[in-house]
Amino acid sequence: MELYFLGTGAGVPSTERNVSALALRLDKPHETWLFDCGEATQHQLLKSPLSPMKIRRVFITHLHGDHVFGLPGFLSSRSLQGDANHRVTVYGPTGIEEFLRHALRHTSTHVRYGFDIVEFDPTTLHTTHLYEDDHIAITFAPLRHGIPTVGFLIREKEHPGALDAEKLRALGVAPGPQYGELKRGIDVTLEDGRTLKPDDFRKPNTPGRRVAILGDTAPCKEAVALARDADVLVHESTFSARDAAHAHQHHHSTARDAAQTALAANAKRLILTHISPRYHERANDPADLPIQLLQEARSIFANTDLAYDHFHAVIPRIVPSASH
Amino acid sequence: MELYFLGTGAGVPSTERNVSALALRLDKPHETWLFDCGEATQHQLLKSPLSPMKIRRVFITHLHGDHVFGLPGFLSSRSLQGDANHRVTVYGPTGIEEFLRHALRHTSTHVRYGFDIVEFDPTTLHTTHLYEDDHIAITFAPLRHGIPTVGFLIREKEHPGALDAEKLRALGVAPGPQYGELKRGIDVTLEDGRTLKPDDFRKPNTPGRRVAILGDTAPCKEAVALARDADVLVHESTFSARDAAHAHQHHHSTARDAAQTALAANAKRLILTHISPRYHERANDPADLPIQLLQEARSIFANTDLAYDHFHAVIPRIVPSASH
Ligand SMILES: [Zn+2]
Ligand SMILES: [Zn+2]
Repeated sequence: MELYFLGTGAGVPSTERNVSALALRLDKPHETWLFDCGEATQHQLLKSPLSPMKIRRVFITHLHGDHVFGLPGFLSSRSLQGDANHRVTVYGPTGIEEFLRHALRHTSTHVRYGFDIVEFDPTTLHTTHLYEDDHIAITFAPLRHGIPTVGFLIREKEHPGALDAEKLRALGVAPGPQYGELKRGIDVTLEDGRTLKPDDFRKPNTPGRRVAILGDTAPCKEAVALARDADVLVHESTFSARDAAHAHQHHHSTARDAAQTALAANAKRLILTHISPRYHERANDPADLPIQLLQEARSIFANTDLAYDHFHAVIPRIVPSASH
Repeated sequence: MELYFLGTGAGVPSTERNVSALALRLDKPHETWLFDCGEATQHQLLKSPLSPMKIRRVFITHLHGDHVFGLPGFLSSRSLQGDANHRVTVYGPTGIEEFLRHALRHTSTHVRYGFDIVEFDPTTLHTTHLYEDDHIAITFAPLRHGIPTVGFLIREKEHPGALDAEKLRALGVAPGPQYGELKRGIDVTLEDGRTLKPDDFRKPNTPGRRVAILGDTAPCKEAVALARDADVLVHESTFSARDAAHAHQHHHSTARDAAQTALAANAKRLILTHISPRYHERANDPADLPIQLLQEARSIFANTDLAYDHFHAVIPRIVPSASH
C-alpha cells in the first residue's frame, strides 16, 4: 500500500502545487484508487510512475471545482490510450453523475471502456460500503464543509497468521504434508497419538491497515471518528493557526486542527495536504513558509508530514510479534 | 500584436505538448484574446509572461474536450485572483453556454466578475463580426471537422499614414501649427496664398494585419477563403502526409495540407500547431519526429514554423514604402 500525492494545493494551481488529487496503490486488488481529480491530474500522472490504466476506481470527496475539474479530461484521455477492458467506476456525492455526463456529452466524448458512476448521499450517517472484496473495504462519512463533503476510510481485512514452524519443530514435527493440513485448518493426528489443533500453531493474525482520506473540512468530531486508530490520516491543512478564524469561516482546517484530530483519533501518522497558495517557498514572511504548517502540527502530533506534489508514502503492514 | 502558443498538442496532453490554447496579445485594444482553452491552460499561463487578468475575450473553435476542458478552471481561478472589473466574454459555438453553465453550477463556482457568453451558430455562412471596435474586428467561418467547427479571422483596421514632413519641408513649410491642422484633416492656406490639401501630405495608410486562427479541420476551400492574404495563418497539422488517409478520415489535416492551404490563400506566414502525440522528440522512427512535419510543409510553403508550447511570434505591422 502506497499513497502518492498528485496535487497538494488548495483552490487554484500554483507553480509549486497542483489542485487536489491523491492516488492509493493497493496490493490486493492490484489496482490504483484515485481520490479527487482536480484539473491537470492527468498531467501530473504523466510525470508520475503511475499508470492511468491501473486506476480502476475514483472517489470524489465533494464537488468543488478544484477537486473535479480534471475528471472529464482524465476519463477522456484514458479512453484514447487504453482498451475496453480497463473499466473505471467513479464514486461521488449526489450531482457527480450530472456533472460528468454533461461535460462528456457537450464535448461529444465517448468513453470507450466500461464506465460506471456510483452516486452516494454524502449526508447519510448510515455506514455504507462503497466497495468491498475479500481484501479491502471502503466507507465514507460526512464532514463539515460549505457543501456536502465526505471523508473516506479504507480498511484492509485481517491477514491470517502464518504457520508457526518453529513451534512445530520444537514438538518434533518435521516439515511435510502435515504442515499443509494444519495450514488448511485440518486437525492432524501424529503417529504417537497426539492431536494437533491448527489454531495452536498459527501465528497471530496481521491486522489490516486503515487509511483515512478526508475531504475539505472544518475540524469536527466526525473527522475524529472516521480517523480512529488509522495507520495514516490524510487531512487538509489549508491555513496555519494564525489564520484560524479565516479558515473556520471558510469551512477549512489549520495545521493545528489537523494535528489535534490525529491526536484525538489515536492515528499513527498524519499527512497534511490541501495547502493554500498563500504558503509557498519564496514567501517573504517566514510565517507563510510551508514549513510553518509542518512545525505547527508536529508540536502537537510528532509523526506528521507535509505532502508536496509527487510525495509518496509507503504504508507498511505491521506484523505483530508472536507471543510464545 | 503577438501570438503566444500555450498548448500545441492534439487530443491528449503529453510530456512535450499540452492540449490546445493560443493567446493573441493586441496593441489596441490593450487586451489578450484566448483561442481555445484545453485542460491546464491556466497552468500554462502560470508558466508564461501572460496575465490571466488581461484576457478579456475567449474564442472557442469547437466543443471537443481538448479545446474546452480548461475553461471552467480558468474562469474559476481568475475569479479568485482578480477583481470585479476584469470582465470576460466567452464566444463559442452553440452549446458552449450549456457546457459552461453546467460545469460552474454543479461545482458551486461563482464567477465574481462581469462574465458574458456569446453563442454563435458555427454553421452559418453569413459573415458576422463577433467583436468590432475602431481598431480591430473578428469574424468566423465554418470549417470541416467531425462536429461544427470554425476558424477565426482577426482583421486590424487600416492605420492612417503619418504626415509627410519631408515633402512639406521641400515646399518650404516649416514645422508648426499648420502641421497639426493638416494632421487633423484641415486645409491650410499659406501666407503666399497657396492652399495645401491634407491628402497630398499624408503618407500611404498602413494596411491592418490579418491573422487567421483555424480550429481543427480537414483541408477545405473554406480554410483557404478565410486565410486569404493573411499575415499569419495558424493551421492544425495533426499528422504528416504519410498518414493523410487517417488524417482525413478523422477530419484533420496533414502538414502538407496546411502548407497547400497557406499557398492557395496567399498567406505570408504559416504556423503549424495541434500536433499528434505520435510525433515527439524521442521517437525511434525518424518519420515520427516533429521536424518531419516542418520539413514537409516548408517544401511547399517556405515561411512555415512549427509551434511548440510557449513559442511566440510577433506579427509586425508592415509599413508600405512611400511613393513619391
Ligand atoms: Zn472544497
Ligand atoms: Zn477537434
